[in-house]
Amino acid sequence: MSLLVTGTIGIDTVETARDKAENVLGGSAAYFAFAARLLAPVRLVGAVGDDFPTAFRDALNDPSIDTSGLETRAGSKTFRWHGKYLEDMNQRESISTDLNVVAEAPPAIPESFRDSPFVFLANTHPAVQYGFIDQLDSPGFVVCDTMDLWINEFRDDLLKTLSRVHGVVLNDGEARMLTGKDDLFRAAQAVLDLGPTLAVIKKGEHGAMLVTRDDLLVLPAFPTSSVVDPTGAGDSFAGGMMGHLAATNRTDIAAVRSAIAWGTCAASLTIEAFSVDAIRAADREALARRLARFRSSLAFD
Amino acid sequence: MSLLVTGTIGIDTVETARDKAENVLGGSAAYFAFAARLLAPVRLVGAVGDDFPTAFRDALNDPSIDTSGLETRAGSKTFRWHGKYLEDMNQRESISTDLNVVAEAPPAIPESFRDSPFVFLANTHPAVQYGFIDQLDSPGFVVCDTMDLWINEFRDDLLKTLSRVHGVVLNDGEARMLTGKDDLFRAAQAVLDLGPTLAVIKKGEHGAMLVTRDDLLVLPAFPTSSVVDPTGAGDSFAGGMMGHLAATNRTDIAAVRSAIAWGTCAASLTIEAFSVDAIRAADREALARRLARFRSSLAFD
Repeated sequence: MSLLVTGTIGIDTVETARDKAENVLGGSAAYFAFAARLLAPVRLVGAVGDDFPTAFRDALNDPSIDTSGLETRAGSKTFRWHGKYLEDMNQRESISTDLNVVAEAPPAIPESFRDSPFVFLANTHPAVQYGFIDQLDSPGFVVCDTMDLWINEFRDDLLKTLSRVHGVVLNDGEARMLTGKDDLFRAAQAVLDLGPTLAVIKKGEHGAMLVTRDDLLVLPAFPTSSVVDPTGAGDSFAGGMMGHLAATNRTDIAAVRSAIAWGTCAASLTIEAFSVDAIRAADREALARRLARFRSSLAFD
Repeated sequence: MSLLVTGTIGIDTVETARDKAENVLGGSAAYFAFAARLLAPVRLVGAVGDDFPTAFRDALNDPSIDTSGLETRAGSKTFRWHGKYLEDMNQRESISTDLNVVAEAPPAIPESFRDSPFVFLANTHPAVQYGFIDQLDSPGFVVCDTMDLWINEFRDDLLKTLSRVHGVVLNDGEARMLTGKDDLFRAAQAVLDLGPTLAVIKKGEHGAMLVTRDDLLVLPAFPTSSVVDPTGAGDSFAGGMMGHLAATNRTDIAAVRSAIAWGTCAASLTIEAFSVDAIRAADREALARRLARFRSSLAFD
């Protein structure tokens, strides 16, 4: 089944303690799309400026990514982010964020995309997120992401979005901030009180947790020693997760549990190179091999 | 098969953000013993002073714990520790540590204990640890713990101990400190270069990792929302792990992998109450039920 993603497509500069990548392809929807397309066809909705490099456009022109929802806005500039990771890669600081086209009116969802049964609303203003939902023909399964800014400053809009989605993916700090609960399991349960039937808490190098009213999955991260750049891990996680659900056309709990494992493996690929390089170079078989290794690393009699 | 543990038996005062327990039974060997005895008979070796409360002695007189190696030293005082956990329970500070009897000559291993095939050397001076090994009749499987003090100040002694054990359990910070490697998987591999055939890295609320030359297990912690006091989690983990190996009389990799899961569940019981209260109140069935829940929380198709 088709999988729609809305989110940013940007130009990133990323510094780590050891290396730097300047003006590379980034953005939540880009990371999501390159992960998800390993499993299911992706419909990409986003906006870039007329400064968006041809090479990045070519990269997005993957056979499994439909870019007819990628709007190039004349006179506008592409979203840019410059971040720096500390020696401890779990910590980063934003050196600059130029919203540019992201601060303008959101892109429209093309008519041909409105029947998408699986939808991922990557992190953006929650009013924009529910604006996207309004444009869709009753999608079967909508999952959103969010961030501290919206939790703190636009809570009412966020609560409206949360009341209309089936699932939400949050990192641990965001879940605590949203619910005021320190314990992650209790925080996830409190998220369910806001509307979604499933809450996925991302814990970075410590894995992820899925909580529903009567089910629980706790997985570590895929054990990799080759972390080059953590940027996009969360969006790739969501891409692998939603890609699996769209590919199987299932949203039952067993499928969602598997989807979390696929997402975990997609995230681990992404962080092994700067930008989308590693996840873009991967194919379905590479991701499936990684899932098999992940399964082995968790198994005990 | 019999399982020998050497370590501290102490009187703890523990403060958390919400509560406080004063003058309660503690010490690495006590936590280990209460966890391990759920699975296998335990031989306890340690020393206390003549101030050791009768109630604590009675508590240790469990049918599955042989306390004939518990030396009560006249004129000496029992080891005491006073610690305080911060709001984030992963962080604690020691308010006071009175080594007392632990600073004196180590207890002797009773003649009747010297044939123990499974041995756990809880955290103490590494010279004392290899002194214990010298007293044993070629034990089949010896695992030790250690801490930052010995890593930094008595490295040569620690390296001598590590060259003589089959396995080591360390927390993440200790593994990094010992090896100078930030990445935990690489740190664990570097630990193997020092002698042990298996390295177990404990990550507190983030679970544990087992690394051998050609095997890897990564498990999250058991998901509990009832953390009252994290003290003794690591020693209970080791107790569950070694208890499973002694009970099955196996040290092959499949058994060690299962053992890590048993240890994970034992640790999760311990932290649900102050002191040894929760792990002491548990029976084998409670631990087995927890293992079944742990297995479910990790399963995906």
